Amino acid sequence: MEAGNPARPSAQQVADVRDALAREHPLVQCLTNSVVTTITANALLAAGAAPAMVDNPREAAEFAQVASAVLVNVGTLDDERARAMALAAASARAAGNPWVLDPVAVGALGFRTRTARELLQHAPDVVRGNASEVMGLEGSGAGGRGVDSTSLAEDALAAAHRLSERTGGVVAVSGEVDVLVHGDRVVRVRGGSPLLTRTTGAGCSLGALVAACTAVTGDPLLGAVTAHAHVALAAERAAARCPRPGSFAIAWIDELDAVDAAALRADLAGTGRLA
Amino acid sequence: MEAGNPARPSAQQVADVRDALAREHPLVQCLTNSVVTTITANALLAAGAAPAMVDNPREAAEFAQVASAVLVNVGTLDDERARAMALAAASARAAGNPWVLDPVAVGALGFRTRTARELLQHAPDVVRGNASEVMGLEGSGAGGRGVDSTSLAEDALAAAHRLSERTGGVVAVSGEVDVLVHGDRVVRVRGGSPLLTRTTGAGCSLGALVAACTAVTGDPLLGAVTAHAHVALAAERAAARCPRPGSFAIAWIDELDAVDAAALRADLAGTGRLA
Amino acid sequence: MEAGNPARPSAQQVADVRDALAREHPLVQCLTNSVVTTITANALLAAGAAPAMVDNPREAAEFAQVASAVLVNVGTLDDERARAMALAAASARAAGNPWVLDPVAVGALGFRTRTARELLQHAPDVVRGNASEVMGLEGSGAGGRGVDSTSLAEDALAAAHRLSERTGGVVAVSGEVDVLVHGDRVVRVRGGSPLLTRTTGAGCSLGALVAACTAVTGDPLLGAVTAHAHVALAAERAAARCPRPGSFAIAWIDELDAVDAAALRADLAGTGRLA
Repeated sequence: MEAGNPARPSAQQVADVRDALAREHPLVQCLTNSVVTTITANALLAAGAAPAMVDNPREAAEFAQVASAVLVNVGTLDDERARAMALAAASARAAGNPWVLDPVAVGALGFRTRTARELLQHAPDVVRGNASEVMGLEGSGAGGRGVDSTSLAEDALAAAHRLSERTGGVVAVSGEVDVLVHGDRVVRVRGGSPLLTRTTGAGCSLGALVAACTAVTGDPLLGAVTAHAHVALAAERAAARCPRPGSFAIAWIDELDAVDAAALRADLAGTGRLA
Repeated sequence: MEAGNPARPSAQQVADVRDALAREHPLVQCLTNSVVTTITANALLAAGAAPAMVDNPREAAEFAQVASAVLVNVGTLDDERARAMALAAASARAAGNPWVLDPVAVGALGFRTRTARELLQHAPDVVRGNASEVMGLEGSGAGGRGVDSTSLAEDALAAAHRLSERTGGVVAVSGEVDVLVHGDRVVRVRGGSPLLTRTTGAGCSLGALVAACTAVTGDPLLGAVTAHAHVALAAERAAARCPRPGSFAIAWIDELDAVDAAALRADLAGTGRLA
Repeated sequence: MEAGNPARPSAQQVADVRDALAREHPLVQCLTNSVVTTITANALLAAGAAPAMVDNPREAAEFAQVASAVLVNVGTLDDERARAMALAAASARAAGNPWVLDPVAVGALGFRTRTARELLQHAPDVVRGNASEVMGLEGSGAGGRGVDSTSLAEDALAAAHRLSERTGGVVAVSGEVDVLVHGDRVVRVRGGSPLLTRTTGAGCSLGALVAACTAVTGDPLLGAVTAHAHVALAAERAAARCPRPGSFAIAWIDELDAVDAAALRADLAGTGRLA
C-alpha cells in the first residue's frame, strides 16, 4: 500500500465499521424530506440498520434520546417539521447520540437556509451536502438552484474547513470525488456513478447511512468515509448491470445489501478509492 | 384434509375472497404513514383494489362514508393527521364500513400510544401489528424500539384475546408465524419471508390488504386470513426469484398480482399454511 | 404523411421538444401529493428534467419565480399545502413561468374541488386529469370516486372546451385515447398501457412531464402532446417486457430515459399515435 494521507482510514478499519453496521442494527431516526423517505428507509434496511421516521414535534425529542443516531434533512420543510428538527437535534446532542445534517438546497431559499443555520448550534457530528449547499450553509456560497450542485466539491474545501471548525464535526462534500473534512484532516472518496444523481434520494440516503455508520464507531470521519465508500462501490456494481435509472435504483439497494465487509475491504485494498 | 381447528377457513373460502377482491375493486381509504404510501398504493392496485390516500381533516370523514374500507396507520403522526384519523374512524363506524388500525411503534412513544388507544373507541374491525405493538396498544407491553418487534407473535396471544374482547374485532399479530384472534377463535398463518421485514412498508401494506379483503367479505377473520396468506405466498414466490431486498420488493408487488384465486387455493390445499 | 388535423404537431416538432428537454434540464417545482413524490421525481429525472419538491407556504412563491415550470397536484391536500399552491401558482403566473394543474379526485370531494376551482383564477397553462376530474373541475360532472375515472375522455370534450376557453390554456384529458384541447384545437394521443393505471403516480408523473415539456417550448399544446406521446411509447415498451405492475413501473422509468428524440420521432412517423 502506498504511503500517503495519514487521515485516510485503512481498508480494515472501514470493513470493521461495515461489519458492525450489519451486526448491531443501529436505529436511525430520520427527519427527512417527503420525496425520499422510502428509498432512505430501504437503503438503511439493506445495509443492516433500522430506520424510524419519527419527525413530529410531539415525539421527535423523546425518540432522539433512544435512537442510535439522528438524520436531519431539510429537503421539504414546514414549520412543524422545522420545530421537530430543532427538538431532535438538541435531544440527540444532550443524550450524546450522533446526528447528521443534510442541508438540501440551502443557500437557494431563505427559510431553509435560516433553519439549517440555526441547527448548527446543536453541533452536528456530520454535515453532508453538495458544494453549493455546504457553501450556502457556511455563508460563502451564492446558492444553487435546488438539489443539484453547480460547483465542484473542491470549490467548497475552504468553506468545509471553516464549517468543521465551527461545529467540531465532519463536513462531507459530495461530488464526482467526495471530499470529507474533519478539522484539518481531509479524506477523498472516488468512484460511484452519475446514475446516483439521476435517482431521487440517493444522496439523501447517503446522509442516513452516514448517520448509521457514525452510530457504530466513535469516529465520525471514519463513519462518514465508510458510508461514502459503501455507496460508491454499490453504485458501480449496480450501474454495471443496470445502466438505466429506474432499474439502477433497485439494483443499488440490492448492492448495498450485497456489499458486505469482505467486499468493501477487497475493493479498498485494490483500488485508489480512498485518498 | 386433516381435521383440526374449526376456526380455520377452507382453501375455497380464502380463494373466494381473493377472487372477490379482483372483481369488486374495493376502494380503500388510507390514512397511513409518509414512508409507505407508495408501496401501500401499489400493493392494493396489484391485488385489484383501488387506493385513495385521503388523510386530511377536511375530507377524511366525508370520504370514509363512501370508501369500501378505511386503513388507519399511526406510523408518522402529526396533530392534523391524528384529527383526520379520529374523524375517519368514527365516520367509517357510523356508515358501517370496516376499518383497520395499524398501531406502528405504539407502546414505544407516548403521543401515538395515546392516539391509537383513543381510536379503539371506534371499534376497529381489525387491529394488525407485531407483538410489541399489540401488547403496547392493549397496555400490557413494555414497548419496542420502533417498527421492529422484539417479541414473538405468540407472546402477544393473551393481549390479543383481551384486545379482541374489547373491540369485538379481529387482532392480527404478525411474526414468523402470524397469529389471528377473533374472540376465542385463533387462526395461524405460516410462511412468508424474512425479506418482508427488510422492505419498508410491507407490513403496512398488509394492513391495507386486510382492509381490502375485509371490505369484500362480511367476516373480518376470513378477510384478515386471506390477506395474510396472500402476502405470505407472494413473498415466498418473490424471494425464490429475488433474494436481495430492492428487487424483492418489486417482485413482491408482481406476485401480489400473479397470485390469483386459483394459485392461492392450490397453495392452501397443498400446504400447512393455515393452522 | 396523411393529411388531416392541422392542429396535430409533426413528428419532428415533438422530437424537438423531447430533445430540448434532455438538453435544457428544466427545473420543475412540484407541489404534489404525498403518494407520488418519488415516482414523479424519478420520471422527471429520467426524461432529463430537474425536480424540486418545494411545497411549503414559506418557500413556494419564492421558488416559483426561478423554476422553469410549476406543477400543482391536489391529490393529498391540507391547509398549508393549499396555501402554498395558491402562492406558487400566482407567483408563476406573475413571473411568466408556465404552470400545470392536476385536479386529482376533484368533483368527488368538496375541499379539493373548491381549492382547485380557486386556482383557476391563476390561469393554468395546462390542466391535466381524467374525464371525471375535468368535468368535476369545470362544474359539469357528477364526480368520480377518486383517482380512477368512470368516464371516457371523449365524454369530457365539451367540458374541456369550456374550461380551455376560461383559462386560455390547454386541457388534457387522459383516457384510453387522450384528448388534448386548446381553444378549438383538438389533438388525440393513442396508445400507452393499462398498466399505467395499475401503478400509483404514473398519471401524476405525466402532469409533471407536461410541465417540463411546456417549459422548453412556447406552445403548451405542443408541450402537452409531447409529454403524452413520450409517456405512451415508454409505457408500451415497458409493458412488452414487464407485464406485471411492480416491474412495469421500474421499466417505465427506464424507458422514459431510453425513449429519446430519435425514438419518439420514428414512432410518431410510423404510427397513428397522434390524430
